Amino acid sequence: MRSRTETGRKVTELLKNAIVEQGAVLGGGILKVDSFLNHQVDPYLMNQVGLFIADQFSCMRIDKVFTAESSGIAPALAAAMRLEVPMIFARKKKPITMLEAASESAPSHTKGGTVNLYVSTEFLKPYEHVLIVDDFLASGLTIAALGRIIVKSGCELVGIAAVIEKTFEGGRDFLKERFGVPILSVVEIESLDSEGPIFRDCN
Amino acid sequence: MRSRTETGRKVTELLKNAIVEQGAVLGGGILKVDSFLNHQVDPYLMNQVGLFIADQFSCMRIDKVFTAESSGIAPALAAAMRLEVPMIFARKKKPITMLEAASESAPSHTKGGTVNLYVSTEFLKPYEHVLIVDDFLASGLTIAALGRIIVKSGCELVGIAAVIEKTFEGGRDFLKERFGVPILSVVEIESLDSEGPIFRDCN
Repeated sequence: MRSRTETGRKVTELLKNAIVEQGAVLGGGILKVDSFLNHQVDPYLMNQVGLFIADQFSCMRIDKVFTAESSGIAPALAAAMRLEVPMIFARKKKPITMLEAASESAPSHTKGGTVNLYVSTEFLKPYEHVLIVDDFLASGLTIAALGRIIVKSGCELVGIAAVIEKTFEGGRDFLKERFGVPILSVVEIESLDSEGPIFRDCN
Repeated sequence: MRSRTETGRKVTELLKNAIVEQGAVLGGGILKVDSFLNHQVDPYLMNQVGLFIADQFSCMRIDKVFTAESSGIAPALAAAMRLEVPMIFARKKKPITMLEAASESAPSHTKGGTVNLYVSTEFLKPYEHVLIVDDFLASGLTIAALGRIIVKSGCELVGIAAVIEKTFEGGRDFLKERFGVPILSVVEIESLDSEGPIFRDCN
C-alpha cells in the first residue's frame, strides 16, 4: 500500500469536516453519519473516497471489491468504479435468485443480534484477489466474516479499506493478526464522547 | 424527459447484452441478474446507466435521488454522482441511528412477505424535488411505497427511473395513474420464459 498522498490528505480532511459538522455521537460508541455515509450518501465525498482507496491499493492486483449490504455498497462501488473491477455485496438474507451460497455470521453493532452474510459461490472464484471495502472498521467482526468467506472460497484477501475506523474498538489489530493484510482507513477516530470525536493523525 | 439519445441507445444495448449473456430466467417471472446488477455489480455498466438516467432527466430540477436498499443503491448512486445531488436509500429495518422515520410497506417479490421501508424524516425536506431510481420496475409496489414516503414528506416526486422494467407486470400504468410523473426504464422486457427475455423497443 502506498503512503498517503496530498489528494489522500484532502479526502481525509473533507471526511473529518463532514463528521464534525454533520455527525453526532449517540452514546455506546455509536457515531451517527447518516447524512453523508450510510443513509443519505454524498456522491462527491463517496467519489473522492473511492478514488483515494483505489489510489492507495493501485500497486496491487485486485480482481474484485467485496462488501456487505447495505452501508458498504456506496464506498465499495465508488472504489470499484475507480479500480475498474466488479463489486460484490454480501447479502443478509439469501434471495431466491441465489442458488449456491457461502455464508458466515457476525454480531451486529447497530441493529442487535447476529447478521448472516451470504455470497453466491459463482462470483468468488479461486485465486481471485479481493479487496474488502466497508463503511466502518470498529470491532472488525463483520469484516472478519467477509474475510472468512473470501478465504474459504479459495480467493486471496489482499487488503481491507474502511471509510471510518474507530481505533478504540481494536478491530485493526484483530484483523491484522487474523489476515495479515494492509488495512487502510480514510479517517481514524480515537475516542467518541459528548465532546465529539477525537481523530488520530494518519499519515 | 428528453427523447433517447444515441448514448442512451448504446447503454440500452449494453444492458440487453448483459441480460442475454449473463441473465437467467428462474420461473415465476423472476430474472436472475446478480452477476452485474444486484449482487455482483458491473461498475462500468452502472456508470453508463447513471449517466443515461441523469441525462434523460437533465431538463428537470432534481434535489435528491431516492431508492430502497439494497439493490437500488448502485444505480441510484451512479445517477446521483452524475446529477451531483445526494442519494438516500430507504432502509428495511430501522437502525438505532435513525431517530424519526417516515415509513411505508410493500410486498417483496423475491424474498416473500412484506417489506417495510424507513427513511429518516430529516433528509426529505418539504418542497425538495425527488427522483426515484431502482433496479427493477415490475409490479411497481416497492416504487409506489417510496413515492408515498416522498409525498407524505411534502416533497415533490418528479420522476421514476428503473434499470430493468418487466412491462408484463403492469407497474408502469399503476405508477402513472398514482403519481403522473415521467417513467424511464433503461430496458423494457415484454415477456420472460424458458426461451429467454423478449425486449420491447424503447425509443
